[in-house]
Amino acid sequence: MRIVLDAMGSDHCPQPELEATLQAAQEWGDPIFLVGPIDQLKSQLETLGGAPPSVQLVDAQETITMNDKGLKLALKAKKRDSKTSMAVGIDLLKNGEADAFVTAGNTGGALATAFFRLGTLKGVERPALATLVPVKDGFCTLLDIGANPDCKPEHLLQFAVMGSVYSQTVRALNDPRIGLLSNGEEAGKGNQLVRETFPLLENSGLNFIGNVEGKELFGGEADVVVTDGFTGNVLMKGSEAVAKLLTDILKEELMASARSKIGALLAKPAFASLKIKLDPDEIGAAPLLGINGLVFVGHGRSNARAILSAIRTARNAIEADLLTALSAAIQVRLANMPSSEEQASA
Amino acid sequence: MRIVLDAMGSDHCPQPELEATLQAAQEWGDPIFLVGPIDQLKSQLETLGGAPPSVQLVDAQETITMNDKGLKLALKAKKRDSKTSMAVGIDLLKNGEADAFVTAGNTGGALATAFFRLGTLKGVERPALATLVPVKDGFCTLLDIGANPDCKPEHLLQFAVMGSVYSQTVRALNDPRIGLLSNGEEAGKGNQLVRETFPLLENSGLNFIGNVEGKELFGGEADVVVTDGFTGNVLMKGSEAVAKLLTDILKEELMASARSKIGALLAKPAFASLKIKLDPDEIGAAPLLGINGLVFVGHGRSNARAILSAIRTARNAIEADLLTALSAAIQVRLANMPSSEEQASA
Repeated sequence: MRIVLDAMGSDHCPQPELEATLQAAQEWGDPIFLVGPIDQLKSQLETLGGAPPSVQLVDAQETITMNDKGLKLALKAKKRDSKTSMAVGIDLLKNGEADAFVTAGNTGGALATAFFRLGTLKGVERPALATLVPVKDGFCTLLDIGANPDCKPEHLLQFAVMGSVYSQTVRALNDPRIGLLSNGEEAGKGNQLVRETFPLLENSGLNFIGNVEGKELFGGEADVVVTDGFTGNVLMKGSEAVAKLLTDILKEELMASARSKIGALLAKPAFASLKIKLDPDEIGAAPLLGINGLVFVGHGRSNARAILSAIRTARNAIEADLLTALSAAIQVRLANMPSSEEQASA
Repeated sequence: MRIVLDAMGSDHCPQPELEATLQAAQEWGDPIFLVGPIDQLKSQLETLGGAPPSVQLVDAQETITMNDKGLKLALKAKKRDSKTSMAVGIDLLKNGEADAFVTAGNTGGALATAFFRLGTLKGVERPALATLVPVKDGFCTLLDIGANPDCKPEHLLQFAVMGSVYSQTVRALNDPRIGLLSNGEEAGKGNQLVRETFPLLENSGLNFIGNVEGKELFGGEADVVVTDGFTGNVLMKGSEAVAKLLTDILKEELMASARSKIGALLAKPAFASLKIKLDPDEIGAAPLLGINGLVFVGHGRSNARAILSAIRTARNAIEADLLTALSAAIQVRLANMPSSEEQASA
């Protein structure tokens, strides 16, 4: 298994990437391509004791940052001789020199670069951004979270198929439960998109559990929840903001009196444990589903442990031959699907 | 000021409603119509020491429950001689016998009943459900949270006008900051609805601060956030579920060791304070905006204090002449607005 790692992805790059690379080399010994400004990488690797021969440095002098957006980003992503670490890294996949690409960088940048350089799987109209949401007793794969602000029912069906295959192969879940995000659990609830998507999912052969709301999603009742990229993005960012507000207020309150300060001190392990449970570092990276290549995006705030775990996720996907499984499922599930118009008139 | 109170709204009705009625009668002395099964209300009021003459009991033998949905609900809401406490209470407004209606019952039920019996304000195509979301250092009025799963740009503009007027008159905010919920802060981000709504809000004369995400909403950067009823509902329910998940995990962790149990005990006032900060009881009720009448809906879990505070909100709205202010603003702001098609081609 040949992994490409974007050395310039995370907020504190390249240090976490370098440490993760050395740990991965030790753990598996497989080839790792480390992409970034080669002189900087070389000298920083030396201070870490140097890298084994399985680690290969690949030069890329530019990076895509969190400030690259819109047209500027698209141009950087598309340009044939682009020198960004993402473009150089993804081209290694394109040329068959590597099997998966991992980055902790700008998600939109990874999507654009992967889309323009690798294209999509046959039968997939829109690639989707998936994320792993911490829920009761585990995680839920939520997609799309921003690649497609406006979707058609067929897109949501494709997301469901891809989310299901991903959960089976990489998350090793048996017959993943698929939920459709809605403003009510009952069939018939939803906006037009949801109401038109519902029958497609019902007839898809997937383990469709129906409409789900926040309660079911965060209650851990679904393994995969599909929605359009606008709603998914709003929900994800809203959830993160609520979690931050809650912990901020609690911290403030705990610091407000001597008594509760002592309480907070004693309760510290409980808070640390909460943090770990809500921290997706253990799973490490979310896939770009529908791209014709294995591309994984981790959190910008990833540390070495998170990046190592992202590499592990990528290895699992290679091992399970995720791309072939996705292609096959798309063909099988969608070949005989009626269009949403036919469904509506049925 | 003549308030109608649905005695059969809250989860523990009618006890909280009766207590709140007696407190309101004592505080203000204005007429209160208490609507519900009259014999039950009479006997329970007697055990509380009886009601003063300003409290008038109005008989309604049926109630709308959380189980009333869809067509069944619509029929109950529309039926001319409906005997539900909501219908009987709202008819008092319709007949000019009272000035505002307050319930802690089924929000959809209140909306349907109010819509069928009172209609909408002139110029309002769709009434909206507003809610007060607890945010950093206060509350944000979020609308629509479920009345209209599919919206047009004009609807969102009307929501913004109504949310602004409501915040000025009832929440006493000066020049309320209006945000448009989106999947990115930059202008140009959003789904088609958001992209088409943006220029309408920009030219509305409202204090439009642009697109907002969860961070800005829960960070308290906007006084009013407008969105379609699908996204608003998903966000609201998602936020509630995240808050529950977080506190559940924390409780579990705190109970997991003797040390943290003691910590939790010491920190109890901090947790209680968190609960109060996140508890909208102080504001008490959310308005149905755009209905031709003052209708307020409180949480199902309301206690007497919350219902008293809902009555206070209704009184503020009567005093500020909210309905006239809404009508005037709708006429002024929307009279010369180009349609979204004209905007798009401009």
